[in-house]
Amino acid sequence: MSTDSGRFPLRLNIPGAVVEMRHGSGGRSMSQLIEEIFLKHFDNELLRAANDQAAFNVSTGRMVMSTDGYVISPLFFPGGDIGSLSVHGTINDVAMSGARPLYLSAGFILEEGFPMADLEKIVISMAHAAHDASVPIVTGDTKVVNRGKGDGVFITTTGIGIVPHNVMISSEQAQPGDAILVSGTIGDHGIAIMANRENLDFETTIKSDSAALHTLVADMVTAAPAIHCLRDPTRGGLATVLNELAYQSHVGMKLDEQMIPVKPAVQALCELLGLDPLYVACEGRLVCICAQQDASRILEAMRAHPLGSEAAIIGEVIEDTHGFVQMETCFGGNRVVDWLAGEPLPRIC
Amino acid sequence: MSTDSGRFPLRLNIPGAVVEMRHGSGGRSMSQLIEEIFLKHFDNELLRAANDQAAFNVSTGRMVMSTDGYVISPLFFPGGDIGSLSVHGTINDVAMSGARPLYLSAGFILEEGFPMADLEKIVISMAHAAHDASVPIVTGDTKVVNRGKGDGVFITTTGIGIVPHNVMISSEQAQPGDAILVSGTIGDHGIAIMANRENLDFETTIKSDSAALHTLVADMVTAAPAIHCLRDPTRGGLATVLNELAYQSHVGMKLDEQMIPVKPAVQALCELLGLDPLYVACEGRLVCICAQQDASRILEAMRAHPLGSEAAIIGEVIEDTHGFVQMETCFGGNRVVDWLAGEPLPRIC
Repeated sequence: MSTDSGRFPLRLNIPGAVVEMRHGSGGRSMSQLIEEIFLKHFDNELLRAANDQAAFNVSTGRMVMSTDGYVISPLFFPGGDIGSLSVHGTINDVAMSGARPLYLSAGFILEEGFPMADLEKIVISMAHAAHDASVPIVTGDTKVVNRGKGDGVFITTTGIGIVPHNVMISSEQAQPGDAILVSGTIGDHGIAIMANRENLDFETTIKSDSAALHTLVADMVTAAPAIHCLRDPTRGGLATVLNELAYQSHVGMKLDEQMIPVKPAVQALCELLGLDPLYVACEGRLVCICAQQDASRILEAMRAHPLGSEAAIIGEVIEDTHGFVQMETCFGGNRVVDWLAGEPLPRIC
Repeated sequence: MSTDSGRFPLRLNIPGAVVEMRHGSGGRSMSQLIEEIFLKHFDNELLRAANDQAAFNVSTGRMVMSTDGYVISPLFFPGGDIGSLSVHGTINDVAMSGARPLYLSAGFILEEGFPMADLEKIVISMAHAAHDASVPIVTGDTKVVNRGKGDGVFITTTGIGIVPHNVMISSEQAQPGDAILVSGTIGDHGIAIMANRENLDFETTIKSDSAALHTLVADMVTAAPAIHCLRDPTRGGLATVLNELAYQSHVGMKLDEQMIPVKPAVQALCELLGLDPLYVACEGRLVCICAQQDASRILEAMRAHPLGSEAAIIGEVIEDTHGFVQMETCFGGNRVVDWLAGEPLPRIC
């Protein structure tokens, strides 16, 4: 749909413009914002139909639906921005069921006064992330709140996907004896954000690991369809995800600290900031729990994928009705890895 | 899932509590908020599975997906609140394709310090609206932003639905000669909000028309599956929706002001506030465009439904490549009903 010059006498002057209340009014200004920023960059047939909903054909099967809000601060960070994160994060939540993600929706809550150029940058980043993942953004919504009642941009994305018929992954399926795998180094995302906020410059800049994991999951599921659990360790980090899985499966877990991959720079910054990498968010990693006999095949499939090259087996599921997660430390001790209780890393996603 | 007292030593003290940053951390506090407020009230099997996504079976067909953010202020108003509105509004966007809505997701962005009792009130209202509509909320997300970076609660809901195989409703299908119908009085929602904000008390309190329209749509589609366009006149009101449909269908429209149902109290408050009811949002009304020969059958079906008892034929589609919407006024004159340009009613939904 090309911009109809009769309808919008002047094009949006993106470099100089800011978001105004009228851009959320439902009227001509909103229509122009949608055409000149959202439609232009997201650009796909379903979105262009410009109904209040997207329509597409589905085949009989098991479908999943997932939603996530993104309120990260700062909006732009090493390795990504709120736009790419909002695409990756929701694709990952869909993919953690073993599903092939099909479509995304995106809802924007904009603060009056937000620079239009920053909005376009975010939208372009979302468009690239969606294109690279082959998961189009097919419908959306824009609201504007008064200055001081929001924080630039909040984005809520929802994804749907279809699960292969032989796959049944769910968080209550961990069994004593199962292997626990992680797809790569932990804590990169959270530390990249914190270092950016605190203006901590290290020898090398730590980048967010933000990435869409659905092709990695597809390779894993092909290698061994009987995966028991998959979860991406975002807020609350690896420790929280393992506690959730232990709780939901009524089992315990025993981790080997030496086997958990952490980048030296991440480890160093964690020490500086008084953080434990086990509780620091990732946005492009996954935890997999599977039967021991499947573990090496899955590990091999992970390592063969660019997003799983540092995958490792980090522990095993044990019997424990209390759902405790324990860890043998590098020093040979043993400690309980509890749920995250407070909030050391606000607005990390 | 009953609350495990070992996991949360103290239950949430809802009357005294407020939302804190830790409720968005992904850790134990968030888990408790989810169990003791969201799971408790939304209560369904899919949500209880407590994965990061909901899974369900679908059959081959045409599916629709729609998303909407809700930033209404005030959060509670005569006839509803942000919770019921966020369920009705998205069900309606799905239903405007003729689809039967299946499931909803809900993403919450909470401001630190928001009273937990108000959050529960909103969640209970959403739960009732979803239950009454038979469209369960099957997955969700919660984020918390710092005090002063949000405005109490923002909610983004996404809905999916299945379109009956003989229905094909879309906004570019209006044809010259078609009839234009509206399902009831216009402007009630917007005026209820504005009167509430301005503390205007009239003889009778004007209530929002907020309602889920999917059963009305189902009755209309049964009466005449060949409906051309359906749209709910929310932000920007009836005038904006008709301009959108005229633009997308490359036609003009001719309205008869006398036939447009407006409550006398709404008309009076519009005059007091300097508003034109044609531009005031509804949240439980729809506009239908159909062939003349289907109009009386559809009107009859609408009037037989409690949400369409005041339905009326308000005009017809005419040939006009400029997409103008014209109206014959009560005084016998003729005027152009343009798009809404500014933002007279901010944060109306």
